[in-house]
Parts: sequence; C-alpha cells; structure tokens
Amino acid sequence: MMKFTKCLILSLLLASVNAVLVAQTLEIQRIHPTNWWIGMKNPNVQLLIYGKNIHKAAVSVNYAGVRVLKTHTVENPNYLFVDLVISKATKPGTMSLVFTQGGAKTTQKFVLSTKRHQPIPVNSSDFVYLLMPDRFANGDESNDRFEDMLDTKADKNVPFLRHGGDFQGIINHLDYLQELGVTTLWNTPVIENDTKLKKELHGNLQAAYHGYHFSDHYKIDRRFGGNEGYKQLSTALHQRGMKLIQDAVYNHVSEDHWMYLDPPTKDWFNTWPSYTGTTHKEQAITDPNGANIDRKYLTDGWFTPFLPDVNQRSPFFANYLIQHAIWSTEEFKLDGWRIDTYKYNDMPFMNRCNQALMDEYPNLLIFGETWVTNPASLSYYVRNNVKFPFACNQPGTCDFPSFQAINDGLKESFGWDGGINRVYHALAQDFLYYDPSKMVTFLENHDTDRFFSVIGEDFNKYKLGVAWLLTTRGIPHFYYGTEVLMKNFKNPTDAEVRRDFSGGWKTDTQNKFVASGRTAQENEAFDFVKKLANYRKNTPALHSGKFTQFIPQNGFYVYFRHNAQKTIMVVMNTNAEAATLETARFSERMQGFTTAKNALTEETISSLASLKVPAMTAWVLELK
Amino acid sequence: MMKFTKCLILSLLLASVNAVLVAQTLEIQRIHPTNWWIGMKNPNVQLLIYGKNIHKAAVSVNYAGVRVLKTHTVENPNYLFVDLVISKATKPGTMSLVFTQGGAKTTQKFVLSTKRHQPIPVNSSDFVYLLMPDRFANGDESNDRFEDMLDTKADKNVPFLRHGGDFQGIINHLDYLQELGVTTLWNTPVIENDTKLKKELHGNLQAAYHGYHFSDHYKIDRRFGGNEGYKQLSTALHQRGMKLIQDAVYNHVSEDHWMYLDPPTKDWFNTWPSYTGTTHKEQAITDPNGANIDRKYLTDGWFTPFLPDVNQRSPFFANYLIQHAIWSTEEFKLDGWRIDTYKYNDMPFMNRCNQALMDEYPNLLIFGETWVTNPASLSYYVRNNVKFPFACNQPGTCDFPSFQAINDGLKESFGWDGGINRVYHALAQDFLYYDPSKMVTFLENHDTDRFFSVIGEDFNKYKLGVAWLLTTRGIPHFYYGTEVLMKNFKNPTDAEVRRDFSGGWKTDTQNKFVASGRTAQENEAFDFVKKLANYRKNTPALHSGKFTQFIPQNGFYVYFRHNAQKTIMVVMNTNAEAATLETARFSERMQGFTTAKNALTEETISSLASLKVPAMTAWVLELK
Repeated sequence: MMKFTKCLILSLLLASVNAVLVAQTLEIQRIHPTNWWIGMKNPNVQLLIYGKNIHKAAVSVNYAGVRVLKTHTVENPNYLFVDLVISKATKPGTMSLVFTQGGAKTTQKFVLSTKRHQPIPVNSSDFVYLLMPDRFANGDESNDRFEDMLDTKADKNVPFLRHGGDFQGIINHLDYLQELGVTTLWNTPVIENDTKLKKELHGNLQAAYHGYHFSDHYKIDRRFGGNEGYKQLSTALHQRGMKLIQDAVYNHVSEDHWMYLDPPTKDWFNTWPSYTGTTHKEQAITDPNGANIDRKYLTDGWFTPFLPDVNQRSPFFANYLIQHAIWSTEEFKLDGWRIDTYKYNDMPFMNRCNQALMDEYPNLLIFGETWVTNPASLSYYVRNNVKFPFACNQPGTCDFPSFQAINDGLKESFGWDGGINRVYHALAQDFLYYDPSKMVTFLENHDTDRFFSVIGEDFNKYKLGVAWLLTTRGIPHFYYGTEVLMKNFKNPTDAEVRRDFSGGWKTDTQNKFVASGRTAQENEAFDFVKKLANYRKNTPALHSGKFTQFIPQNGFYVYFRHNAQKTIMVVMNTNAEAATLETARFSERMQGFTTAKNALTEETISSLASLKVPAMTAWVLELK
Repeated sequence: MMKFTKCLILSLLLASVNAVLVAQTLEIQRIHPTNWWIGMKNPNVQLLIYGKNIHKAAVSVNYAGVRVLKTHTVENPNYLFVDLVISKATKPGTMSLVFTQGGAKTTQKFVLSTKRHQPIPVNSSDFVYLLMPDRFANGDESNDRFEDMLDTKADKNVPFLRHGGDFQGIINHLDYLQELGVTTLWNTPVIENDTKLKKELHGNLQAAYHGYHFSDHYKIDRRFGGNEGYKQLSTALHQRGMKLIQDAVYNHVSEDHWMYLDPPTKDWFNTWPSYTGTTHKEQAITDPNGANIDRKYLTDGWFTPFLPDVNQRSPFFANYLIQHAIWSTEEFKLDGWRIDTYKYNDMPFMNRCNQALMDEYPNLLIFGETWVTNPASLSYYVRNNVKFPFACNQPGTCDFPSFQAINDGLKESFGWDGGINRVYHALAQDFLYYDPSKMVTFLENHDTDRFFSVIGEDFNKYKLGVAWLLTTRGIPHFYYGTEVLMKNFKNPTDAEVRRDFSGGWKTDTQNKFVASGRTAQENEAFDFVKKLANYRKNTPALHSGKFTQFIPQNGFYVYFRHNAQKTIMVVMNTNAEAATLETARFSERMQGFTTAKNALTEETISSLASLKVPAMTAWVLELK
C-alpha cells in the first residue's frame, strides 16, 4: 500500500507544480473505452480520460446525437470522467472530443460504430473446451516475447515461464477441436499481462502465462496476437459455427496495472493497514451467525500479495469494468463470459455487471468460477431457490460440487456416502438452484489435479468419467488435453497441470493433434470422447431432456435423459467386477421400451430385463 | 403380508357367519380414544370402535352438547368409526354410547373432561435429558415382567432383554437430574410394546426394551408403570418445574399391534408384493431429478421386517394417530413431543398432525428425529428458507449436522474442512432454517456411538464437547450417562450404548448417582456439566442471545452469545498444545469490554488483548 500512497502524493505534488508551470499543455494518454457503439440499450457511456493534470480540462463534443452529460473529477488530477449520452439516431463515424484548459487544447478521435453483435447461444447443447493459450500451440513465433514488456522471457523448457502459445496456434487446430466435437472455446484470460516475473510460493520465478494478472483492460496481450489476432480467432470460430467465451477477472488486477501505479482515488482498491489476504472462506457471507469482519476478509482481502483487490463499490471503477465487459463483447463478438474468482467479488457489483451485459446481449452465456463444493453455499452465487438476504443474478456457475464428487467418488469403492453416491448426492441437491441446466460441469480445469491422475490412470474410470460428463445435466466443459490423457498433480506447482499440448510447438517430437502421434490408448481416449461428444451433439435428449436419476445401489448408478422423442439410459457399473443389473426398478422410465442401442459401441441390446455390465463401465443406451 | 391377507379373509368369513348366526350379540373390545375433552379448538373427534362384527351397529348418544355427526364402515366388519361433535358448552361427565344392531344392544361409558392442560414452554433455555426407561433405574421390581405378555423375560445380565427400569426409578432420581441442571425429561417411548422377542441382525433374541414397537397406543407399558405410573412421573416433574417430552412413533407399529393382527382396511399399512425395506435415502424426496419409486421406497418401505409401515394417507388411520397425540398431551400433561424416524413419514400427514397439536397447544415443543447430516436436505423437514415444492411445518428437529460435525471434528486435527471447522461449517448453514434456535443439539443419543468413546476417551475433548453443546445455539439435549462418562461403540449391537445406569438397580455394586460412587474423573465430568448447565440456566444470553461465530483459524474456534445485557465469548483451542489467541479480529463483539470471568473456573482474566488457552480447551468467558 506504500506504493499507492507515494504515487498519490507524488501526483498531487506534480499537479500543483503543473498548475503553475505547465498549464498550457494537455496530454491525453488514455481514453477508455477506446471506442463505442450506437444502439446500445443503455445510451450512456462514461469515458475515463487519463492524462497528466487533465482534471481541470473542459470537454466538448460536436457530433449530432452525442452530448456531454457531466464531467467528474476525482482525487488524482490525472483523471477526468466524462459522461456521454449517445442517442439512437446517431450516425456511425468518428467524433472529436475536444479538451481545453487555459490556452491549451487537444482533440481526440473517438469512433462510434453501430452495434451489430448478437451472441450465438451457448447452452447445454454445447461442449466447451477450456485451454490456456500460452500452452496450447505456438502458431506465431514472432510474438513469443517483446523486449519492451516487463517480462521479456519465453522458454518452453521452464514450466513457470511463458511458452509462446498464441491465437494463431489455436486457429491452426480448430479442425482438431471440431473433430473432437467441441462447439465452444474458452481461453484463460487474453487481456494484456504486462507484468514482472513473480517469486511464487515454491521460490520459482513465475510469469503470468495464465493471463490472470491484467495490466491494461483494453489491450489483448501482444504475445497471443493482440486485439487483431483475437478478432481473427473470433472470426475463425464463428465461421465454423463455433463460439467464443472470454475469461473475465473483475476481482483484482496486477500490481503492474497502470491504474494501480497511479490510482484515480484512494479507495480505488481495497486497502488494509497491513497486507491482508482473503480467507477464501465463503461460509461467512451467507452465515446468519457470521461476523462482519469475516465477510470483509473474503471479498476485500487480497487474492495474493501482488494482486490489488478492486474496490467494486467505487462507482467509477464499477462503470469502468462493466463498460469494458460490454466493449469486449461487441468488439470481439463474444458468445459468453466466464468470471474468475466469482465469490471474492462484491455481489451487488456482480449483479449490476451481469445485468448490464444481459440487457445488451440476452443470449450471452455468463458463468462464474465459484469454487464452492457445498451446493447450499454455492447456490447463493446463482439464481437460486433459497431466501437469502441478497439475490445473486448469475444464471449458472462452474459446478464444483459435481466436479468434486466425480473426482472423489471414482477414487473410492461404492459406499453409503462414497463412490458414485457422491455424484448422486451432489446432483440430488439441484433443488437449490433455480436452473440446474445452466451449471457448467467438468472433470478438471487449470487449477485442479488432472482427472486421469486423480483416478490413478485407470482407463475404465476415465471413460466412465467422460461418459458421465457428456450425459449428465448441465453444460459440459473439457480442459485441453483431457482427450489425450494429459496427466499430473499440482505437485509441486500448478504448472504441472498446465503442460504444453504436445504437437503445438515446432520443436515438439510428438504430435497429439494427429492420430499417428498418439499412443493406442490416447487414440482410444480421443475416439471415445469424439464418439460421445458427436453423439451428444445430435441428441437433444442429452441437452434439454429431463434428467432423472435413481438411488445408486450395489455399485450401479442409473439415470435417464429423456424427452418426448428419445430416452437415453445411462447405466454405470462402478464395481470392480462385471455385474448384472435388474431393471424392474426403473420401469417408470423404461416402460414401452424393449431394446436398446449402445451409443458408444453401436451394439444392440435385445433384452432390457437385466443388463450385465462389465466392471467400471458406463453404458449409454438409446432405448427403442 | 400373507398374515394381513389371511386375517382379513378370516374376518370377512367370520363376519358372514356372524351375520347369520350371532347377529344378536354386540361386543365392543375397544373405543379409541378412550376418553376426550371439552374445549378443544377442534370440536370433532372420531371414535374407532372395535368389536366383532360391529360394522352394522347403529350408534347413539344422549348427552347435551354431543352429537353423532356420521358413522363410517370399512372393509373389516370388526370396525366402526363414529364422528362426534362436542360443543364448547358441553358439561364434563360420563356419557353413554349406545350401540344397537338387530335386537342386540350395548352401552359403553365415555368420559368427557374439561381441557385444562397448557404445556410449559420448552426452548433454548432448557437442558433436555434423554433416557431409556428400561435402562435408567428400577424403582419397582414388581413390574419387571408379566406372564401374560408376549415377552415374559427380564434379565439385567442380558443386554438384549428388558432390564426392569421404570418410571419409579426415574422419580427416585429426579434430585440427581435437577442437581445436574436438567430441566426437561425425554424418555424413549413409553407406550406398550407387548411384542415377541425378535431375532436381531446379530442373531440375539432381542426385546423391545427401547420402546419403539407399539402394540397398543392407548396403553403405557405396564413394565414402566402403566398409565398411572406415567401420570405420577409427569406430576413429579411438573412439581419441580421440570418438563416432560414424549417420544412419538407415527411411522410404524409392531407386527404384534392389535391393528396389524386385524387391520381395518387392506391399505391400513403400506404393503409390497414382497418385503421391501426403506432405502433410508432421503435425497430422492427433494431431488428434482429424483425417481418416483425412490420416493416411495423411502416413505413406504418398511423400517425392518417386523415393523409394519403405517399408511398415513389413510384418513382414518391419520385421524387415529393425530387424536392419540392430542389425547396423550392432555392425558399425561406433556410439554413436548419428539417424533421418531421423521423422514420416513408421509409429510402431508406430519404437517396435519403437527398443526393439530400446535392448534390445541401453541406452547408445545415438537421436534423430530431426522437423521440427515446435510443441512440442505435436513432443512426440507423443518420450516425453512428454501422454495421446496412442499413446505414442512416442523418447528425444529434434532440437529444431526452439528452432532456429526462435533463427533467427526474432535477426532481430527484442525484443517481446512476438518476438525472444529466441521462445526463452524455446519452452523454456517443456518440460513437454510427458518428458526435455527429450535434445532435440538446433542453429542450422542441411543442410536449412536457414545461420545466419550468416539473421542478416544480424551477428557479434554469431552469437556470441550460439553462446553460447545451448552453454549452453542439451539436446545441442547444429553443422553443419560454422558455426565458420568458412559462409553461404548454400537459394536457389536446397539445394546452396548444402552447399558444400565450404574446405581439404578438394587444389585448394582456401583452407584453413579452419588459422588461417592463415582470415580474422580466421573465426578469431574459430572461437576463440569453441572457447573455449566446451571450457569447456562441463569444466563439468558446463552438461551436467546444472538450467536455470532468467527471463521476458525489456527485451531481456534471463537464465538459469542450476546444480548443487550451480556456477552459470552467462547474460545476453543483445539490444538494439541497451549496456544495464544490474538483477539483484535473479534473487536466487533469485544468492543467496550476489558476483562472477563471464566464461567467454568470463576477466574478473572484481566486483559483480553491476547488469551493463552491450554491445549484442547474451551473457555466460556463472561465479558466485563
């Protein structure tokens, strides 16, 4: 926090000096948003103007349909906030913003376009693929590193440094993703992370290769391909009918973020007398017995010592973040947002932000990373069926309860609470959510142990887990490499579960993007995912069909996805031996059906009265 | 179920024969309820008349204020249901019910008294003591066994047989309970269990010594002292200002229950093509993805093969059970009901039953045994803050989540989710309940391992657990013997945790009812409970004061009970070593206080800035 105070004092001093000595010059360094659109539901936009001693400048606009509603100064003289109103009748074009102060004057161009974007809906008919652009494929070696950035390193051989992956690398492998059955891409954050290497817990010097340390909201990282490269990726996806989800970080920024280096106000970030980390304990938020200080620790405590915690109660900062989200959606034609560290945010802000996005883009998918494994606690963060004192409006969220359940459950034998019963119990709590079909289900992500390692590299469990993910309720997402059995625990560091996708670099000796580069088992895995994901793609019962699950018994977990057209029966034998399931108990869903087709093997099952299922195997049966 | 069918066919045959041959005789074996009251809020009462071939009898009453509204016959000719209306203006007295059929006539006396009882409120200011009358103290050896009952055995040396404990034994030790600080007695069921010995899972011949196998609702078991003995116990309690809770079993009856031997209708009990036990899995009830059959299994499946499952959807049986509950409340002057196996009941029935009781007795405590350790699932069974499709009206219930948490938590070291964090997490979910103060908290009961054994007979943990129970939110209950360190696991059978209270039998060589009969540690335990229970009794902040808990950190769990008059700070050091707690974090509750009195030791703590607490110790501090 010393840095903050020093900066502010310095700025104030400079401002006084400037007022006397250099009042005649006006330099505008930033206008955010950098451009805007006509035809937004909300006709207002608040420009953040950043320039040395800009605070006393007068602003004018001479452009039909646009007027300056109000200007605001704040503590730091280098900021000015300008509220514009843009009428629906405004014509697209480039307007001029004229700043004058004393005898000084400067004119800034500002492009107004017509709003055109409508997201393609992403929902439970989709199959989302999460990847880390730095680690997937390096399509352009010229952008791996830049000498004018704070981190000038790129070395594929060091797990903690940047590896050079980029948008072009992704574009080069869209065929691969589409073959697999993926419909939607979610990248870890793509916004500029122009930040110093950090000494990380284990003593390694670590780059922000993951993208979660924003340094300038309005720049896509050059090392991925910048704003233009990102637009190319978006276009390439949409040309294939694929969709794009962006990863938002509202909670914190990098300590190298330009706004942290020269903050507009003393309360722009949440500060503490001495460094105070978040407790990560969300229980206090909803606990009617909870202490106020514990609530404050969660949301205002810092995520790490080098990630300043955004004060989302600051109306200017809140506007800035919300407008940036809208700007990104329109500028890059996004179809959805994943919101990082959702529970650490200020919930009234999140509601405003979500609502603003949904108002402009009713089709837009919004889901947060809310790492809470107890459904009752998790339900607070989404539209829910609980009378909480505050009602969050997040439509869906990452389904950590079922993630935890499938990971823990497949490590255990079947038991009263254990084994596959964990999955049953997690999903049985869907009564808490307003719309469980909007939960985003997964087996692993960039912050967890790799699923294949968790289950002891048991290939049967792997297939069972994948079959579960692609047939249960919700919107399934994969993490890059699951389909080729990428493994590892987060031990010693997260970098272990963020290894490069083999074949994405010219120097790679193996290429898992092609069948010939994969082992037999990797091909079996890839083909299994491909088969089921593509079956799912063409089977609406697996998207929006009702989900009916039965109490697991004798190691069998049986559930159905069904609509008027089709009934899919999923039978999981989680026993270590082949076992026979008598199906009389399921008659309420099986009535009228006599045979089935196994969607994975295409085999026909001629009698449904009893099913002998191999050990640790899921059958996906289309009933006939 | 064969038995049922045979009985019914036999009855029907006999009925036909009777109709021809013996139409001239009318024998009434039972009228239930056996008596009733004037001034009930509900003026209606439905009499169940049981007598051979009674179904065609006409019924008349000639008593001012009372009229027969309707009579009902059912499939079994031995039953007749008579709806009476009793006006408020009716005078107490003995009325005659006249039954006539053909030339036959019989008159039955039926006593109408004035309703007078109002329960004494039992709430979070109370300390409830659960005991098993057969196992606490034998005050009357003449009632230990009866040759005319199905189980004629009584042998204190056989864990699975009756031991002879009774109401007189309890009355003899009310001084003991009152000294301990107990305000309210809850006995396991006292209704007649005239049932055969059962071959239990482990092959032992087991008596229904626990009381859960009802054979006749309107009889209190003779071996406890019968209806009169029970009234004496009730009176003795009330004379001391103590209160009485009865244990209700609505879900099932004994297979030796007279109604099961000759059931009124084919659907009087829930029957299945072959024996079908309950799944015990309540998840299906609230799961929006649940299967209908799984819901039916839970509530209509049998608890054991010898406990016929009551069909509470039968309107006559429902009335019978509800009226019996009201009858018992008035007849024995009850202050509360504990409801056995709550989740296995039909919830619309339970709502009707609870409402009928609360309508007549607004002060009455009602809480169920709902053995569900997940608060979200448990919340369904009480008034809650969740939009479930059905709203249960149970005011409170046994708090199995916190019970499980304190038992599991004290077995573990402190951890992210483990140790005392379990308790914090359980109570942090109070947002699910409409009124958490009505939850009935406990460390152990007659169906669980003994707490002292669970925690490895660690006396520090014992004291910490007791301190938690008597200072956390809710209505605390003990299980007999906790105060003298009674121990054991349910291994090999439940009987191990239902051992006799030493000193309750003349032949006992030890007497734990008196200090001289207890070991030094038992006395320390007894005195600890006594000290805290009596402190609690006189400290309203521990009853109705707000409960505020802080996130546990470094093995410390800190919470407050506070009202305008007093603030109690509970500090638990659950570490294996003494440790120091800095208290700055708790300033929102400690502000204005400078010293404290330790309520357990009476010591004064002169500075509150940091507290050095011994290993595994709870301090209960009255802040000054």
